[in-house]
Amino acid sequence: MKRVFLIGMGAGSLGHLTLDAVETLRRVDVVFVLDKEGAGKDELGRLRRELLERVAPEGGFRVVAATSPERTMAAATYEAGIDDWRRTRRDVIADLLERELGADETGAFLVWGDPCLYDGTIQILHELKAAGAQVSFDVIPGITSVQALLASHRVPLNRVGERITITTARELRETDPAAVTNTVVMLDGKAAFRHLEATDLHIYWGAYLGTADEILVAGSLRERAGEIERLIEEARARKGWIMDTYLLRKP
Amino acid sequence: MKRVFLIGMGAGSLGHLTLDAVETLRRVDVVFVLDKEGAGKDELGRLRRELLERVAPEGGFRVVAATSPERTMAAATYEAGIDDWRRTRRDVIADLLERELGADETGAFLVWGDPCLYDGTIQILHELKAAGAQVSFDVIPGITSVQALLASHRVPLNRVGERITITTARELRETDPAAVTNTVVMLDGKAAFRHLEATDLHIYWGAYLGTADEILVAGSLRERAGEIERLIEEARARKGWIMDTYLLRKP
Repeated sequence: MKRVFLIGMGAGSLGHLTLDAVETLRRVDVVFVLDKEGAGKDELGRLRRELLERVAPEGGFRVVAATSPERTMAAATYEAGIDDWRRTRRDVIADLLERELGADETGAFLVWGDPCLYDGTIQILHELKAAGAQVSFDVIPGITSVQALLASHRVPLNRVGERITITTARELRETDPAAVTNTVVMLDGKAAFRHLEATDLHIYWGAYLGTADEILVAGSLRERAGEIERLIEEARARKGWIMDTYLLRKP
Repeated sequence: MKRVFLIGMGAGSLGHLTLDAVETLRRVDVVFVLDKEGAGKDELGRLRRELLERVAPEGGFRVVAATSPERTMAAATYEAGIDDWRRTRRDVIADLLERELGADETGAFLVWGDPCLYDGTIQILHELKAAGAQVSFDVIPGITSVQALLASHRVPLNRVGERITITTARELRETDPAAVTNTVVMLDGKAAFRHLEATDLHIYWGAYLGTADEILVAGSLRERAGEIERLIEEARARKGWIMDTYLLRKP
């Protein structure tokens, strides 16, 4: 039986790595690095290389890199696009496990953030097992960009007794402003908060969280929405990619 | 200016500690340990001592312990009870910072999980600063019991594009079952999921997450609710306390 660990790497800072993640990486045979094509690939790849060097300076494991295609906009619908992308990604992972991991070997997949939050690798491994793959897997949690955002702003996710919602930019566009108490949006990139601008919500916004390029803005959404959208456009033009996460809170 | 770090310790396993948390603990002068009175105090205290020994075997910092009272049920309303409890806790923290931390010293408060999720210490420090305390503070995120739960069950928090809600047992009792997609309840202890039993929801439940006593149950809520409530009662009778967290998911 092949054994695999899905390891949460944290949100961009080497310091987010947990002792469990370090210990696990030090005893696996292979580390799989699944790069997405497209913008941000080089910088994220460099961060991951630094992390692997810090964890195993002697190079105790093989590193096997593969490329997973970016989600294309070619499919007929949003859902079909997601399905295509997931199927391709599953095929890449199946191939890596089949060809690059020996029968009694142990491998690790490095996942940004936490494998349980907005990452499809867990589901793919369940599907491969259901299809007959002789593999068992475990999950090592990691610090998410949500946690990095709140720590940098020094604010709690919620106040006493309040509920929290984590959602997508896509869904936020259909959200009734009156329903927002504490709502987190991950990986927006397109300033979906602008349709809620005429409210009294507060925003705690951050991009490139955990990295040296981290940008933070907090304040009244009404007053800061335009400025944040300009920052998003400027940063994307300068770096070629952006990852941003924010909390909207009823005052 | 006194400097303070609020450090997330993770959910019960020493391996949850991040490299940032370790590095920060190794350079502070004082570690503040704020015990709650009541059930579970001894076991959680032991875990924390083990963690401090692992991080600083030479004892590079002073450890200052204080006791924060358990929330009493004496107050007239739930909200008044919370207010009383928070005010007492704030006074304890103010006193520790005033008397136990020198003018140019650095201190750390160890918080279970992540200081940003269901913990009041960040808000208390903002209040103390607003009241004139000469203190600056930073937050180091930690693995939460939500992440430990999902990692142990090997399930993601959500499926593609779905929203996530994190809430309290108190609020779950007023929740319309039809509104549940992915709902996490932290620190219930009283089986609040039972009022949703006549639905087709799935439950991923765990107690004492991250510790050697971890208990996990997953399955149809209809089929498992009674069994989980019995486990809660048995475990509470055996250990004197329980901390449980669960995800309810629409199938």
